[in-house]
Amino acid sequence: MVFVVVRGKGFTIQCVVTTEGEGVSRQMVKFVAGLNRESIVDAIPVVSVPDPKNPIKGTTQQVELHVRKLYCVSKAMPTLPINVEDASRSDAEIEAALQRGVQLPRVNQDTRLNFRVIDIRTRANQGIFRIQSQVGTIFRQFLLSEDFDEIPTPKLTPGSSEGGSAVFKLDYKGQPACLAQSPQLYKQMAICGEKDRVFVIGPVFRAEDSYTHRHLCEFTGLDVEMEIKKHYSEVMDIVDRLFVTIFDVLNGRCQKELEAIGSQYPFKPLKYKPKTLRLTFEEGVQMLKDAGVEVDPLGDLSTEAERKLGQLVLGKYDTEFYILHRYPLAARPFYTMPCYDNALYSNSFDVFIRGEEIISGGQRIHEPELLIERCQACGVDVNTISYYIDSFK
Amino acid sequence: MVFVVVRGKGFTIQCVVTTEGEGVSRQMVKFVAGLNRESIVDAIPVVSVPDPKNPIKGTTQQVELHVRKLYCVSKAMPTLPINVEDASRSDAEIEAALQRGVQLPRVNQDTRLNFRVIDIRTRANQGIFRIQSQVGTIFRQFLLSEDFDEIPTPKLTPGSSEGGSAVFKLDYKGQPACLAQSPQLYKQMAICGEKDRVFVIGPVFRAEDSYTHRHLCEFTGLDVEMEIKKHYSEVMDIVDRLFVTIFDVLNGRCQKELEAIGSQYPFKPLKYKPKTLRLTFEEGVQMLKDAGVEVDPLGDLSTEAERKLGQLVLGKYDTEFYILHRYPLAARPFYTMPCYDNALYSNSFDVFIRGEEIISGGQRIHEPELLIERCQACGVDVNTISYYIDSFK
Repeated sequence: MVFVVVRGKGFTIQCVVTTEGEGVSRQMVKFVAGLNRESIVDAIPVVSVPDPKNPIKGTTQQVELHVRKLYCVSKAMPTLPINVEDASRSDAEIEAALQRGVQLPRVNQDTRLNFRVIDIRTRANQGIFRIQSQVGTIFRQFLLSEDFDEIPTPKLTPGSSEGGSAVFKLDYKGQPACLAQSPQLYKQMAICGEKDRVFVIGPVFRAEDSYTHRHLCEFTGLDVEMEIKKHYSEVMDIVDRLFVTIFDVLNGRCQKELEAIGSQYPFKPLKYKPKTLRLTFEEGVQMLKDAGVEVDPLGDLSTEAERKLGQLVLGKYDTEFYILHRYPLAARPFYTMPCYDNALYSNSFDVFIRGEEIISGGQRIHEPELLIERCQACGVDVNTISYYIDSFK
Repeated sequence: MVFVVVRGKGFTIQCVVTTEGEGVSRQMVKFVAGLNRESIVDAIPVVSVPDPKNPIKGTTQQVELHVRKLYCVSKAMPTLPINVEDASRSDAEIEAALQRGVQLPRVNQDTRLNFRVIDIRTRANQGIFRIQSQVGTIFRQFLLSEDFDEIPTPKLTPGSSEGGSAVFKLDYKGQPACLAQSPQLYKQMAICGEKDRVFVIGPVFRAEDSYTHRHLCEFTGLDVEMEIKKHYSEVMDIVDRLFVTIFDVLNGRCQKELEAIGSQYPFKPLKYKPKTLRLTFEEGVQMLKDAGVEVDPLGDLSTEAERKLGQLVLGKYDTEFYILHRYPLAARPFYTMPCYDNALYSNSFDVFIRGEEIISGGQRIHEPELLIERCQACGVDVNTISYYIDSFK
């Protein structure tokens, strides 16, 4: 029995060539048997109803394709470094086979990355690519419909560092340059330049050593910047509707892809509300305290405290997606606007999915004097960011 | 007389405060007179019909806004490095004033770039940003509607060079790395990985010295890759419809922005056809020959020859946008598929706007043996791109 994969317009057919018969010569069966896996063929089949007296083992289809002519368009190597079937297997399948005494091959991450062209053929990886494309598309369509403009920002920036943390340095025709860690300052300057609402989708670079499972040296950043009319809650309103839209549309449009990913890497649907839960930092600290977890009420939350709070929120509010806002000023960068009613807190927020922070946001200080004051309080050298401070003048 | 700019939801109002009167105190006029240009204010006006007996000089509006209360939200510097009015002036205006003996300030490119935050407030620059955003949006929407997926490709790539030409080199944790000059190889590998149609929008980097007016070290590349069913003309069909859609939608959606740009930098509307003209390289060479321009029929066209051909095409076909295809094999990169009927030519094309090449495309060789043969013929070291050749096996 030989399996060949026939490429078509977005679908894959498995042909089972079993015997010679009407229109199928012994020669053709031999030819097909000699084809290597992952070869590309053009097949000309006849659609027919299966003979109930002579069922093909393992098939449950209501129609069969009887191949009459078959051409090999591109021949693959006799032995491929990895097989798509092996790369598609879930851990559960491998474990179950092991219980039956069968050792199935497991494809490790290194091997996958070395033969990425084959690895991305798995249904799960095809689904991941598709969903990644859709997340960008929905993000963009939502913001365009809310009167945001997409802007390009420089990735090559002058100087040896952007703000002190680890950057990739390079030589720009004899001058020091580095790769941008975020489009933040450029976004803000666009707002100064009378673009009311902008967003940036593009690569950002972090030359940090990888200590967490969320770390990447290069990733696609989705950045939003907007003019606030009255209050920073306007930004949370946008974030709320934006993410609920992304979740809703993905659930509607990508059911097939979500299933493909889930069958290899099982996961449960995300619990979220049509109107996203908002808690103040003080409320979050109180929930942790009530559960016996002591945290600094004017400091940042540790990763463990964030996870714990995620569990508490899920238990109390039945959601895995929420916004925590009004962070302590001391826990935020120098450019964050203090709260008008209490300068120990700030006009800022983080957004969490399953206890992991996925977005940070806040109102920026737009008054040069206050910005200089906060720089000094936070130990930031005013001279290195004079162009940024000047832009607010 | 004092002008203040009032920021509103996407519009700008010029208030002319002339005299005290009903609801306007001497104190308020003094306060407004003391505000610097580009300050941000909240104004609470009353809408009224102008008094025909007492018209405000220079206004032709049918309504007036009488400011009753005015708060300064953010005060600008007393003297700004450049004024938006100066930065908005066309060369023609400056020339016309000079004829009248008035020397108006001209803002040079260096000054604009040094004070970009103010420079991007000109109507022309606002229009350029908007159109840039729209080009990306239309490009993307068209391709998504044609079943393309957007994919991210790495910008940080291993090794010291991608293909020999000038790249930005950097140190990746002790290993040599460089910035990607194009997403081409990744796009192709995505196609090998069963994504039928993909596109990439993102920064590309070229460490070349700038000798032409089209050169940039960093720019946004719009890249498309698709599976061909039968013939490379399928790609030209997509390019044709894609660009005609971009032109049509820009003309419909961005009339205001095109006018704003044109009033500072005059230009004529682009001449293009609903169905884009296609000429073979041989036909182009013949047109040049008929006009007395001799070119190598199996070599590449020089920049001057391309411009000349653009003029000839405009004269004969009344279009400034066309596709030239079936280029000589010797003029294209090693990975370009030769024509089946004549191996001196190739399955490739360039697209021209006003005599300038804006796109290059072609069918890639997918057979490893032919690819190795072409590498050797073009003097490319097979070992340096083995991962690429292997992906076709």
